[in-house]
Amino acid sequence: MSAPSTSPVVRVPLAELQALLQAILQRHGCSQPVAAALAHNCASAQRDGAHSHGVFRIPGYVSTLASGWVDGQAEPQVSDVASGYVRVDAGGGFAQPALAAARALLVEKARSAGIAVLAIHNSHHFAALWPDVEPFADEGLVALSVVNSMTCVVPHGARKPLFGTNPIAFAAPCAGSDPIVFDMATSAMAHGDVQIAAREGQLLPPGIGVDADGQPTCEPKAILEGGALLPFGGHKGSALSMMVELLAAALTGGNFSWEFDWSGHPGAKTPWTGQLIIVIDPSKAEGDRFAQRSRELVEQMQAVGLTRMPGERRYREREVALRDGVAVSEDELQGLKQLLV
Amino acid sequence: MSAPSTSPVVRVPLAELQALLQAILQRHGCSQPVAAALAHNCASAQRDGAHSHGVFRIPGYVSTLASGWVDGQAEPQVSDVASGYVRVDAGGGFAQPALAAARALLVEKARSAGIAVLAIHNSHHFAALWPDVEPFADEGLVALSVVNSMTCVVPHGARKPLFGTNPIAFAAPCAGSDPIVFDMATSAMAHGDVQIAAREGQLLPPGIGVDADGQPTCEPKAILEGGALLPFGGHKGSALSMMVELLAAALTGGNFSWEFDWSGHPGAKTPWTGQLIIVIDPSKAEGDRFAQRSRELVEQMQAVGLTRMPGERRYREREVALRDGVAVSEDELQGLKQLLV
Repeated sequence: MSAPSTSPVVRVPLAELQALLQAILQRHGCSQPVAAALAHNCASAQRDGAHSHGVFRIPGYVSTLASGWVDGQAEPQVSDVASGYVRVDAGGGFAQPALAAARALLVEKARSAGIAVLAIHNSHHFAALWPDVEPFADEGLVALSVVNSMTCVVPHGARKPLFGTNPIAFAAPCAGSDPIVFDMATSAMAHGDVQIAAREGQLLPPGIGVDADGQPTCEPKAILEGGALLPFGGHKGSALSMMVELLAAALTGGNFSWEFDWSGHPGAKTPWTGQLIIVIDPSKAEGDRFAQRSRELVEQMQAVGLTRMPGERRYREREVALRDGVAVSEDELQGLKQLLV
Repeated sequence: MSAPSTSPVVRVPLAELQALLQAILQRHGCSQPVAAALAHNCASAQRDGAHSHGVFRIPGYVSTLASGWVDGQAEPQVSDVASGYVRVDAGGGFAQPALAAARALLVEKARSAGIAVLAIHNSHHFAALWPDVEPFADEGLVALSVVNSMTCVVPHGARKPLFGTNPIAFAAPCAGSDPIVFDMATSAMAHGDVQIAAREGQLLPPGIGVDADGQPTCEPKAILEGGALLPFGGHKGSALSMMVELLAAALTGGNFSWEFDWSGHPGAKTPWTGQLIIVIDPSKAEGDRFAQRSRELVEQMQAVGLTRMPGERRYREREVALRDGVAVSEDELQGLKQLLV
């Protein structure tokens, strides 16, 4: 598939795009519930203009399924561990169906105990993280999630890569508007955005990564081919990335970002790690007041000159997509349809 | 008190320093348990070489107590809200005695439910945050804490300050060594470190703050006198700082960093906000294995060239201090003793 920028854009109704993605994933080895969970996530990212985690990812899913690296039929095993603790063995399948299988129990526990944690291990996460947390905020809950990925980030002060891009996502309800949601790689740039820059022949700003010799580079291909990313914000971003390894892998029982060997599975793209989600019920301390306090925070941020809240661009893209259809380049759409053959 | 760098350093036994600090705090209006909690925190920071939160803070505590801004006698009210939720009203006193009062219940809930949260509001936090989380890791638990502070950070993309320095602290057990602990301001530099740079006449690196006109400056006094700090790591650090406001203030029922007015209390230095602590029992998923996995992480970080783990400098300073006494400048020690008169 070529770059969206070099091909005309067409608008596809969300339900139609989601059905197409689900059919592709089923065609390439996913069970119906797995394909449905992944297609919903991927179509949501494309709908919201998060192209690095939209349909751009589908060839990676397909090649990974073909390689035998991931089990597209896995049935997540949910364990009710304690009054605030749910654990899921994703069975070597994807993290999204594991979350879907445990979600109702997690929400029930968070509302009862005030806080609950979902620990997913033996899972593959190849998608945007915000779709995992935003729905909790839609239900009035606060959610924080971390997932580790694959070695491509040099810890601050080290010489060689070790950590994954290890994103952190957060969502909180906000009165009178969409939830406050952010999703950030703890690397200086998300891996998918480096891939898109490489595809489009763009140079990166300084400070994003190093080449195979460990030297700073602005060339995305040099980062992707033997080089590595840097953490965002120096030693602080690096410490957060380390925390993500501890929470998403050590705590859940998943692999660290450097522990899996996919060399026997050419085409495999999906990191085989773990994911942690913490959900808090804000009504336990402040009743119905929390969402109103979020609203006050947003208004104060606007009053000091902030013109765009975290997540706001996604909501604007979403509004247009729900009205006019989801933007996909013609070339990408043709490429998707060929994957159905 | 003048800078440690301009006065000879003496070594004081930890217990003696802590007793001195406790006596000063009681002399200036704290109850015995409040003085004990604050003295323990402050002496620990000095012991570990964290000078911006060590005895350097004592004059600020004293002037704040004298101003009537904080209640040094407050008795925290602990509420057992749910199986994973403890709430404390600090009664306009300090956060550390509120944590001390709720700590046993919090640990009991974390061990039973697998995760528990402590929401402190109506509290003043003027200290390092890592002493609040490290003891949980000593007991085999994982802890994460956030506290908001006072308006001095310009949100990324805004024109004027709004957020506090809003630190995040994390602690996890590690087999065969001290816990893995970090404590980071979400501002580009901690406020105390800017104050120390100003005191010592040092310039700051670029990217730390702006002057009263919103222009970039390397002059710490320009940041402290009408200027402001920037978040670390651009929009990502800014989003984390926003998250801290939501968790530490909106969720707990505490003040946002801009909501308190201390203009009627000259000498007041302590932010009147809230604090959140999340404690997870890692044995719920992985039994005794977690600390060993932390150890593997540390070894891998060393293998890729990391020469200093987060928190390691503190442990080295601590070892020397426990053997030879805590380093305090002669001028500072004299200043402390005068506060007893």
